[in-house]
Amino acid sequence: MAVVLRCRAIPACSRRALQRAFSPRAASSVHDMDRTSLLVRAIVPPLSASKHKGQDGRIGVVGGCQEYTGAPYFAAISALKVGADLSHVFCTREAAPVIKSYSPELIVHPVLDSPAAVQEVQKWLPRLHALVVGPGLGRDEQLLGSVQGILEASKATGIPIVIDADGLWLVAQQPTLVQGYHKAILTPNHVEFGRLYEAVFGGPVDSEDQGDAVLKLSQALGNVTVVQKGARDVISDGQQVLVCSREGSGRRCGGQGDLLSGSLGVLAHWALLAGPERTHGPSPLLLAAFGACSLTRQCNQQAFRKHGRSTTTTDMIAEIGAAFRELFET
Amino acid sequence: MAVVLRCRAIPACSRRALQRAFSPRAASSVHDMDRTSLLVRAIVPPLSASKHKGQDGRIGVVGGCQEYTGAPYFAAISALKVGADLSHVFCTREAAPVIKSYSPELIVHPVLDSPAAVQEVQKWLPRLHALVVGPGLGRDEQLLGSVQGILEASKATGIPIVIDADGLWLVAQQPTLVQGYHKAILTPNHVEFGRLYEAVFGGPVDSEDQGDAVLKLSQALGNVTVVQKGARDVISDGQQVLVCSREGSGRRCGGQGDLLSGSLGVLAHWALLAGPERTHGPSPLLLAAFGACSLTRQCNQQAFRKHGRSTTTTDMIAEIGAAFRELFET
Repeated sequence: MAVVLRCRAIPACSRRALQRAFSPRAASSVHDMDRTSLLVRAIVPPLSASKHKGQDGRIGVVGGCQEYTGAPYFAAISALKVGADLSHVFCTREAAPVIKSYSPELIVHPVLDSPAAVQEVQKWLPRLHALVVGPGLGRDEQLLGSVQGILEASKATGIPIVIDADGLWLVAQQPTLVQGYHKAILTPNHVEFGRLYEAVFGGPVDSEDQGDAVLKLSQALGNVTVVQKGARDVISDGQQVLVCSREGSGRRCGGQGDLLSGSLGVLAHWALLAGPERTHGPSPLLLAAFGACSLTRQCNQQAFRKHGRSTTTTDMIAEIGAAFRELFET
Repeated sequence: MAVVLRCRAIPACSRRALQRAFSPRAASSVHDMDRTSLLVRAIVPPLSASKHKGQDGRIGVVGGCQEYTGAPYFAAISALKVGADLSHVFCTREAAPVIKSYSPELIVHPVLDSPAAVQEVQKWLPRLHALVVGPGLGRDEQLLGSVQGILEASKATGIPIVIDADGLWLVAQQPTLVQGYHKAILTPNHVEFGRLYEAVFGGPVDSEDQGDAVLKLSQALGNVTVVQKGARDVISDGQQVLVCSREGSGRRCGGQGDLLSGSLGVLAHWALLAGPERTHGPSPLLLAAFGACSLTRQCNQQAFRKHGRSTTTTDMIAEIGAAFRELFET
């Protein structure tokens, strides 16, 4: 029986609140559900002058091709703004100078269309804490073939892998690519979720209960974490279901999903580092996903307040610092 | 007999005002003409958390060549700032990295000088709600040949097509390209209007009444919408004439027309979606054009107040959010 948790706002943090958040009583109460965000706070590593560069996260983004250069930039810069120390992008040769031009903060590798793409990425994997696969990847057959190899190599290193956008297109072609890999997190939107569901079950979503459908997909894929983005974000690891309905806005500009996937790369690393002892109930990756969804919505809300209908993802990224503090540090 | 409507300012919104705006009495009154802006409000889709990315508009811009890279960027980013969810640019190979580098928000396809340009654009058309043809297009014969094919393919999908700048040069060579396509909107400046008029009638503009000339050109082209930009913007669909003389400024920096054409792409989509029932009189595309003219002028006015003679189109684009709210949301 799945436990369904809902979250709306952030109450004050206290040890008692943390303990109550996942009590049996809490599971059915909206107010107690709100406390999920408190648990996210517990996975955020303290900043310390004694730490070295890289200790708070080295994130890789696989994507960036002929058409798409903004998406991998959005994901990689979001990872930095959430608090990662280093952010790498692995993209095609012609996409690289453009992505580099967006920001001197990123380390951009023009290797994804090389015949040695898998080896080129693989040699960086031991230095990465999480991989985000899909932003701006496109559907070129050769690229998707390389990404298949990169996914296999990444699984072998045991790092969390966030899969979004055309990375999900690849998974829908070959669900075995993520089957049973507990550190995989899939972040489908409505259309992508339907495609994945159909690939796995051979038919369209048959349940009106969104939570049930997400839970079922997660279970069928061997308990990978599934984040169905939408009016409410529904998250499951096949055991629990979390629902994030924090207020955002009605603005749906392209790129918001990249902010989410990049943030999630960092939070997934932090959550696994913190371990289940500190997450007090839900699995670390479930909580990381909840954190990334909350953060994306908060950024959307803050940016919308300033820019209204003209809000773009760049405006949302400018809000990450303040939104993170608001949600997880005050 | 054409109905000529004039607009200057924005009165308070009310059902009664909407009903009066296009009454026979109103048609001859400057004050009632002002109410046209109210009607534009009625085509703006409400923002809603339950919408998916793309539902509020996926716009394509065809342009960007060896000399011109700013114009397609201005048009495409303006579409996003007005409220489209996704904005594509179809340009030449060498223009693409530059346009991409202006903003990670755009999806830029380096296909316009490919021998397969028409097919490359055509495969995206089913995902687009409107096409803006001409910003930064240039007059290369091969490119114009491809654009001719793109126009034919776009007409077959039934989407609105805004044609500006060297897209109008092409139309002046072959007026049959748009003849009778009711979802075409031409946005000529003074020179471009004269060229089109001459191409269609075989002689220069012979009427001193600007409204009559615009009406006549629209009718001769089979009721495409014509927006003659100038000290006053005069708009006609061959049945009605709208005049927009909202205060702008004396500043005429290059790129303002691109802001107008990009905005118009979005508004045309919204207007057709709303349908004639919600436009209470004028045709949806007439109203969309009026909205885009008003918005461009308002952006010009706001930017000029801050930057005076040094105002550039980038300054105007920064005003789109506030100008849109001022005109159509407050």
